[in-house]
Amino acid sequence: MTEIADRIRVIAFDVFGTVVDWHGSVAREVAAMNLGVDPAAFALAWRAGYQPAMAEVMQRGEWVILDDLHRRILDRVLGEFGLDDLPEAERQHLNLVWHRLDPWPDSVEGLTRLKSGYTICSLSNGNIGLLTDMAKNAGLPWDCILSAENFNKYKPHPETYLGVAKTFAAAPEQVMLAAAHHSDLEHARNCGLETAYIERPFEYGREKPKNVAAWDANTLHSTSIIDLAQQMGC
Amino acid sequence: MTEIADRIRVIAFDVFGTVVDWHGSVAREVAAMNLGVDPAAFALAWRAGYQPAMAEVMQRGEWVILDDLHRRILDRVLGEFGLDDLPEAERQHLNLVWHRLDPWPDSVEGLTRLKSGYTICSLSNGNIGLLTDMAKNAGLPWDCILSAENFNKYKPHPETYLGVAKTFAAAPEQVMLAAAHHSDLEHARNCGLETAYIERPFEYGREKPKNVAAWDANTLHSTSIIDLAQQMGC
Repeated sequence: MTEIADRIRVIAFDVFGTVVDWHGSVAREVAAMNLGVDPAAFALAWRAGYQPAMAEVMQRGEWVILDDLHRRILDRVLGEFGLDDLPEAERQHLNLVWHRLDPWPDSVEGLTRLKSGYTICSLSNGNIGLLTDMAKNAGLPWDCILSAENFNKYKPHPETYLGVAKTFAAAPEQVMLAAAHHSDLEHARNCGLETAYIERPFEYGREKPKNVAAWDANTLHSTSIIDLAQQMGC
Repeated sequence: MTEIADRIRVIAFDVFGTVVDWHGSVAREVAAMNLGVDPAAFALAWRAGYQPAMAEVMQRGEWVILDDLHRRILDRVLGEFGLDDLPEAERQHLNLVWHRLDPWPDSVEGLTRLKSGYTICSLSNGNIGLLTDMAKNAGLPWDCILSAENFNKYKPHPETYLGVAKTFAAAPEQVMLAAAHHSDLEHARNCGLETAYIERPFEYGREKPKNVAAWDANTLHSTSIIDLAQQMGC
């Protein structure tokens, strides 16, 4: 058992992109709706609205669950793609695609293995209802679902990272954040958490591979959640 | 499928006494510590401090997680049992017995069956960390852990019952509370939730059987969680 595997008690996971394939799942559902748009481009446009929309909410000191933010962005993106006449029922159904995202092929096995040695939880900006539906659909074996909604703050607010430690009465250095995004990990590290990068080269689709180079600052670098489980002795 | 089984989307469970046997588990650990006290009486005294302590916190408009409340009560009860000299490490360990409570024999099978047809969650005054440890120890297959800590209010505050519905974007009548306590169910019913009573005649020990007679006001009356699963078509 390595020193780090011995010290960590809780592993919190970023979810969108890290545990589930939002791009492939959204594009697939959009394609199935036969809307006459490029499904991959639509998925990217929807997701591109996410960071600015959250930043705006946080700046105003408001709190809005992600389902509602997704809907605001969706209505705008539908307009941009010339789909202003999409009926309300279809908008509502499409907006919940984020509850139905598929896991990456290694996610369920990797999480199941880690669960045998650690408390594993989500730490996602997705709301609790979204994450619960997703876990049920995808078979994600969380010990506990934690969300920005628990803290009324989105990541990267420090209260989210420190909130995981506080929830489990753990010191920050007993908690590890696992994510496919170096910036998320950097914010967690600044709060005293350990960090594990997960390579997800096709988060934005097979046509847009992303740089998954290791950063020295991270505690661990993993090619998958199964690889992380192996490194953590599970 | 009955009308009620068809309408309900979420079943929220009271936990202490309903899903897990707090009396038997606490008494067993106290007995194993050889403190020279009556373990059953000690468990009852500790639990008896719970309602008044919560009421006091709510009256002051404060928020304290149950682990901390349990500790305050424990320190007082230890004094009452002449154990003022119990060392700090043993107090800390004993206080966490509530994280290690055993399920009733039907709980895991009953919840597993209900999970196939409904979203199942806890709705307990236990804090999230406590409920997570308990689920891990006891194998409780929650889709989601919800706690008074999500709402910064203890049951029976209406925000806790209505908070379950809000979390899952459900109407109150699409949510059922399952509990071994008629008063908990009555408060849930006043918020528009459906209710299922679970008989737990030995919640206070085999020597103190409790009245588990049905109340007409409840939607369902069950002899166990397996019986509830059967009634709900799972």
